[in-house]
Amino acid sequence: MKTIKDSVHDHIEVGGVARDLLDTPAVQRLRHIVQLGTSSLVYPSANHTRFEHSLGVYHLACEALDHLGVAGRNAKRVKAAALLHDVGHGPFSHNLEPLTHRRTGKYHDDVHELFERGEVGAVLREHDLSPARVADLVAGDGKYGQVVSGELDVDRMDYLVRDAHHTGVPYGTIDHGRLVRELTFDEDDDLVLDEGNVQTAESLLVARALMIPTVYNHHVTRISKTMLRRAAERLLESTDVDAEELRRMDDPGFLVALRETPETESFARRFDERDLHKRALWAELDDTPESLLDLAHEDVRGYELEIAERAGVPEADVVLDVPGEPEMTESSTRVLVNGDARVLHEQSPLVDALRAANRAQWRLGVYAPAEDTEAVGTAAADVLGLDLDGALVSEVRSGLQETLGSFSGEDA
Amino acid sequence: MKTIKDSVHDHIEVGGVARDLLDTPAVQRLRHIVQLGTSSLVYPSANHTRFEHSLGVYHLACEALDHLGVAGRNAKRVKAAALLHDVGHGPFSHNLEPLTHRRTGKYHDDVHELFERGEVGAVLREHDLSPARVADLVAGDGKYGQVVSGELDVDRMDYLVRDAHHTGVPYGTIDHGRLVRELTFDEDDDLVLDEGNVQTAESLLVARALMIPTVYNHHVTRISKTMLRRAAERLLESTDVDAEELRRMDDPGFLVALRETPETESFARRFDERDLHKRALWAELDDTPESLLDLAHEDVRGYELEIAERAGVPEADVVLDVPGEPEMTESSTRVLVNGDARVLHEQSPLVDALRAANRAQWRLGVYAPAEDTEAVGTAAADVLGLDLDGALVSEVRSGLQETLGSFSGEDA
Amino acid sequence: MKTIKDSVHDHIEVGGVARDLLDTPAVQRLRHIVQLGTSSLVYPSANHTRFEHSLGVYHLACEALDHLGVAGRNAKRVKAAALLHDVGHGPFSHNLEPLTHRRTGKYHDDVHELFERGEVGAVLREHDLSPARVADLVAGDGKYGQVVSGELDVDRMDYLVRDAHHTGVPYGTIDHGRLVRELTFDEDDDLVLDEGNVQTAESLLVARALMIPTVYNHHVTRISKTMLRRAAERLLESTDVDAEELRRMDDPGFLVALRETPETESFARRFDERDLHKRALWAELDDTPESLLDLAHEDVRGYELEIAERAGVPEADVVLDVPGEPEMTESSTRVLVNGDARVLHEQSPLVDALRAANRAQWRLGVYAPAEDTEAVGTAAADVLGLDLDGALVSEVRSGLQETLGSFSGEDA
Amino acid sequence: MKTIKDSVHDHIEVGGVARDLLDTPAVQRLRHIVQLGTSSLVYPSANHTRFEHSLGVYHLACEALDHLGVAGRNAKRVKAAALLHDVGHGPFSHNLEPLTHRRTGKYHDDVHELFERGEVGAVLREHDLSPARVADLVAGDGKYGQVVSGELDVDRMDYLVRDAHHTGVPYGTIDHGRLVRELTFDEDDDLVLDEGNVQTAESLLVARALMIPTVYNHHVTRISKTMLRRAAERLLESTDVDAEELRRMDDPGFLVALRETPETESFARRFDERDLHKRALWAELDDTPESLLDLAHEDVRGYELEIAERAGVPEADVVLDVPGEPEMTESSTRVLVNGDARVLHEQSPLVDALRAANRAQWRLGVYAPAEDTEAVGTAAADVLGLDLDGALVSEVRSGLQETLGSFSGEDA
Repeated sequence: MKTIKDSVHDHIEVGGVARDLLDTPAVQRLRHIVQLGTSSLVYPSANHTRFEHSLGVYHLACEALDHLGVAGRNAKRVKAAALLHDVGHGPFSHNLEPLTHRRTGKYHDDVHELFERGEVGAVLREHDLSPARVADLVAGDGKYGQVVSGELDVDRMDYLVRDAHHTGVPYGTIDHGRLVRELTFDEDDDLVLDEGNVQTAESLLVARALMIPTVYNHHVTRISKTMLRRAAERLLESTDVDAEELRRMDDPGFLVALRETPETESFARRFDERDLHKRALWAELDDTPESLLDLAHEDVRGYELEIAERAGVPEADVVLDVPGEPEMTESSTRVLVNGDARVLHEQSPLVDALRAANRAQWRLGVYAPAEDTEAVGTAAADVLGLDLDGALVSEVRSGLQETLGSFSGEDA
Repeated sequence: MKTIKDSVHDHIEVGGVARDLLDTPAVQRLRHIVQLGTSSLVYPSANHTRFEHSLGVYHLACEALDHLGVAGRNAKRVKAAALLHDVGHGPFSHNLEPLTHRRTGKYHDDVHELFERGEVGAVLREHDLSPARVADLVAGDGKYGQVVSGELDVDRMDYLVRDAHHTGVPYGTIDHGRLVRELTFDEDDDLVLDEGNVQTAESLLVARALMIPTVYNHHVTRISKTMLRRAAERLLESTDVDAEELRRMDDPGFLVALRETPETESFARRFDERDLHKRALWAELDDTPESLLDLAHEDVRGYELEIAERAGVPEADVVLDVPGEPEMTESSTRVLVNGDARVLHEQSPLVDALRAANRAQWRLGVYAPAEDTEAVGTAAADVLGLDLDGALVSEVRSGLQETLGSFSGEDA
Repeated sequence: MKTIKDSVHDHIEVGGVARDLLDTPAVQRLRHIVQLGTSSLVYPSANHTRFEHSLGVYHLACEALDHLGVAGRNAKRVKAAALLHDVGHGPFSHNLEPLTHRRTGKYHDDVHELFERGEVGAVLREHDLSPARVADLVAGDGKYGQVVSGELDVDRMDYLVRDAHHTGVPYGTIDHGRLVRELTFDEDDDLVLDEGNVQTAESLLVARALMIPTVYNHHVTRISKTMLRRAAERLLESTDVDAEELRRMDDPGFLVALRETPETESFARRFDERDLHKRALWAELDDTPESLLDLAHEDVRGYELEIAERAGVPEADVVLDVPGEPEMTESSTRVLVNGDARVLHEQSPLVDALRAANRAQWRLGVYAPAEDTEAVGTAAADVLGLDLDGALVSEVRSGLQETLGSFSGEDA
Repeated sequence: MKTIKDSVHDHIEVGGVARDLLDTPAVQRLRHIVQLGTSSLVYPSANHTRFEHSLGVYHLACEALDHLGVAGRNAKRVKAAALLHDVGHGPFSHNLEPLTHRRTGKYHDDVHELFERGEVGAVLREHDLSPARVADLVAGDGKYGQVVSGELDVDRMDYLVRDAHHTGVPYGTIDHGRLVRELTFDEDDDLVLDEGNVQTAESLLVARALMIPTVYNHHVTRISKTMLRRAAERLLESTDVDAEELRRMDDPGFLVALRETPETESFARRFDERDLHKRALWAELDDTPESLLDLAHEDVRGYELEIAERAGVPEADVVLDVPGEPEMTESSTRVLVNGDARVLHEQSPLVDALRAANRAQWRLGVYAPAEDTEAVGTAAADVLGLDLDGALVSEVRSGLQETLGSFSGEDA
């Protein structure tokens, strides 16, 4: 048993297969991938990594398994999956997923491959575990997969408290000790919260609902991560780096690649000096033409070019950001109520309200250097066909200001 | 300047009128009144007092005034009011309010009188402050009264974090540093949150909405405080202690009075040994006959007697608890949105949802010794005319169990 | 299993004999005994009780037993002892020990008797445990008694962190998670810290060495607890309360007894209003005549009378405080070094230094109302035969001021 | 005023010259330099950066100036110096100082130059501040320089609490709120702690004395940073990177340079995969020949070559680590005692004890791959002329094991 000190869970004891996995390059690599992508540009203390998060998820998995009474090979498999669940991440975590994980935009596609090969595969096999079955757990498959990936998974329990601890934003401070204690399997082998835990479920939902606008979707985070993504696209286009190679980079490798590539070096400077674009347009997505909501990569590029041209600015200075429709996984959390597993959104009026609140914060953004926001905003409204009822773009912007919500560690 | 160490706000600097007020018997008395009444029977660490809370409210008032740019005599008055706002409390804080504060059940009636007389009045006058005007602030009157008592007052900011810190329940951990920074007065002199703070307002609302069922209205807290209240009634009836004298007691004085009075000594034993009643009936108040919702003191007594008789148990063993309709003050918090002060419930879908959730937890309770719950429950359903559609009382109880929600430090 | 929420250790799981003991009057009584006696007069948030501390000690005992690999009846016995270790305390914890626990001044004398009788004895026997053997553990006897009472006991681990948490003074924040993990038994069945833990042992020593002057022996704490003790003496003299009855009181009972007894009521007022005596004399004990160091109770009284007379003040206004020589139990902590258990003071130069520092803070105090300190100080120096080399008493006081050290939440 | 959220100090308000400095490339660069060099290899959560630390130091400087009553240009200068004090750091903070900061090994030499030029110089001049005078403050010169760099500087107050927060090791948790409140200038313009603060000064000393072996000099930290330094030396030798260019790199730039340089790529792999050397020899430096204590860079290299040859292993596999004699700056902290400023080591027996403890932990290390430690250890003892009294090297190692002290997040 190895004891590791963690700033969130204090002492974490690592043994068995987890201890061997810890020393694999694939897991050690996570030391160089920040948990929250570009969020440290808003919250300067948020420099925690996927490595410490993975340890935390492993730790909570052990506690959950203990309370669920799961032992033996099933437990071993879940523990391995918990420690490994993020090894598929590319640099800056989720920020570049659309580029590194083709097709679905979800990284779990690649997990099977990663688990089979190299030292990870070897360690798993040494401990008599099937890489494929462990990978299935990471994808949330099967009875025990729910512990690793699902509405009540230990992943979200760790990241909420950890992100709260490191950003300094208290909203994510859930009662994870209670959550792992109240997990149980219902008669259909669904992972549910035990009787008397409607509020416990609500508190998890609420924590994420408050963290989303304040941390995860803070507008400066959105600006910086969209800029980062554009830079990564240029890197893929102008060098022989491909999606697979990009995914295998860590943060330092990716940053230096941007600095050393002529086509991305000006972005790298902007990122390094925190000289970020500002919002030129910030429009409610409910008012947005349907056609914008599901843009292919090429189309985004097309719009950016057109806006840049109309505004008379260099192409690189226009960044269009159309996020997907907000989801709220936790709304399908199941809780036992008088012996029946009920889905939270049937039980709690909060679910719909939080979903509505979340959806109301859904915004399309167009970003540009500070001095060009006026020109780019007007051009963008035009090109994107936003019917602003004759309102000036600046009014659109200010009119929506309140939903920026959100405290800024530091404004862009 | 005197510096006082506080477990929540670290160093609190007390000067001027506050320093002199601190040494008055009325303020020192608050050391012997617990903040959360009987909650320590559920959360054993929750032994914090009104004294440290008053210091905390004073501290946040100083910070808020600083950020609001209020100085001079107005600030001095608010600081005095902040430190003094709870001196009117009787033993066990709000638990006995209906008995100690006639008519309205609100303690602010007596505040004027308390501020005029004794050392408090003397200190205020020495510092050139009018006791009456300070008392007005405690009642929330006037522009500056909003800082002390209103939807955005520093009282609630302190108690939420302090109660979270001492119970160990994290839900109350609001970002008070942000809240005091974002306060401003709008053009009508209303205290509002500045632009971009809809989420900040929501977070305050959510914190309280989660603390209510988990801490403030935990069923064991409700049982014990209703029992305490019944005991206090017996004390008033059977001794020459009157409401005014009761109000002036502190916790030790009240506890010992219960122990030493024959009519209340058995309650005192129950309280001291945590041998509390259990729920015999626990019914949704929406299903309850209108007539029960606004019971006078005498009527409650009448029902208890009738239930006891029908169940064949001693009168003292039946306790009826009909709480008033839940309020949600924070729903009228105002936030600036594009320069207009908007009321939160117009702006946020969360307000209605939280209000609905809160109302759905509204329960009528009948409590009795464990061995009598069956008999008392049946009798109570009968006497109170609850139409249970033929369901057994025990089913009513279990059928509503999930809404008890709420973690129990310790179950009754 | 019952889960209890604690502000220090979060979730504490209580089962088996501990769960049954929890509901005994003897344990519930600890809810009404504060952990730190009069310290809340210095640190207003320090209102934590012996009840929550006992739960914490129980919790750490469970963890320590787990890491030590102790199970079965031995473990059960230690757990019971951990939860019960403080039931012998009188009101205000250690403050009144010299009065309530005759002869040795240690409360362990009475523990055997307490464990045999009443519900505690019954519960222990029900669980097949011998009350006498559990009481032996509380006294630190035998191999497993060291876990409950010794240099490395879980009692001190809990109180250091808990007192730090509630006073707000960070010095006590030891790494208890590491300490319980590093405990082991050496070949002589001595409880020791494992290899590589000299620093761990030092950190425990240092934590207590810093907490002593700052919290435990803060001069205002000393003044108030000595005054409290004098008041308790008057109570014993002037009423039919005897030492045994005093010991069985809880804080509210004792406070109200002081208020209601004519001979102690003026003290009670001083205590309630925090109108405490001030230091009239504060002398290094190393300079003090040998004869003063081991005063019998009667002698203290004699000196007080003589000083009062000479100073021309009422007897009750002079309080003489001669604390025993400071001990440092932790200095005999044993740590494995290359396989040998070595005593810390042989291994670490810190031990002697801390002992010297502690001893240098050793002071004799004479306290009196603020307006009489000059007269009383002069009289006391005279009566006690302190050779002050012609220095004025006030100089003695100021000359020693720095060693008061210690932050004051609030000065007397 | 910009408000920045910090995980240690909560809200930090940045205005005036500090706000403008914040946006300079020199300050933003600190986002990419970790505070504790390689310590995250022991404590995985310790990923905090020099950027957030600089904000923290600025914040405490503002508080200290406030309590000292310093305003105007003097305050402005100190605030600028506080924010800028670390801009001279090279990658991995102090780890590479001997290479990047020639001659003295102290980085302050370069600070003047850095402050004069570029945006930093421009901003300072815009705000009417002389870069040279601000740089003097960073070097600790003059009355106000003591606030930035000295025994009582705000730098150490921030790093102790911040390092404790992020490593999870509680020993550094000092009471910074008290420290900044108790600062004052004595009549010689020396920065001292006010009366009654001997313990406060001791607590600062103790915090650092416990953090040194546990965190700063943990043996795995020492191994990894010495390896890092060797790699940096190879980089300087085998590429056209010079000391100045190395200093200007940030962590990602340096790491990638190591990965991309053939001569250092195997080290980079070891570092990335945490495949570190182990101790082959670990000898008390007091027993070490005088000649080893002040080795020039070239001499170290010579010894390594000779040991490698004798042990029959590649040169790169032997790393010799001879740290300088431990210092204890805090021992000259001054505290007012009865109006005189006394130096702490005259006043407190702790100083000498801590210095002795620290010196007793002083070790010479020789590191090698796990499989070569036996051979390398024997060879090293021989080559270095360590008189081991015939003891085997492995015994020397184990014989000194206890002084490794220190918890390991993760052992090498």
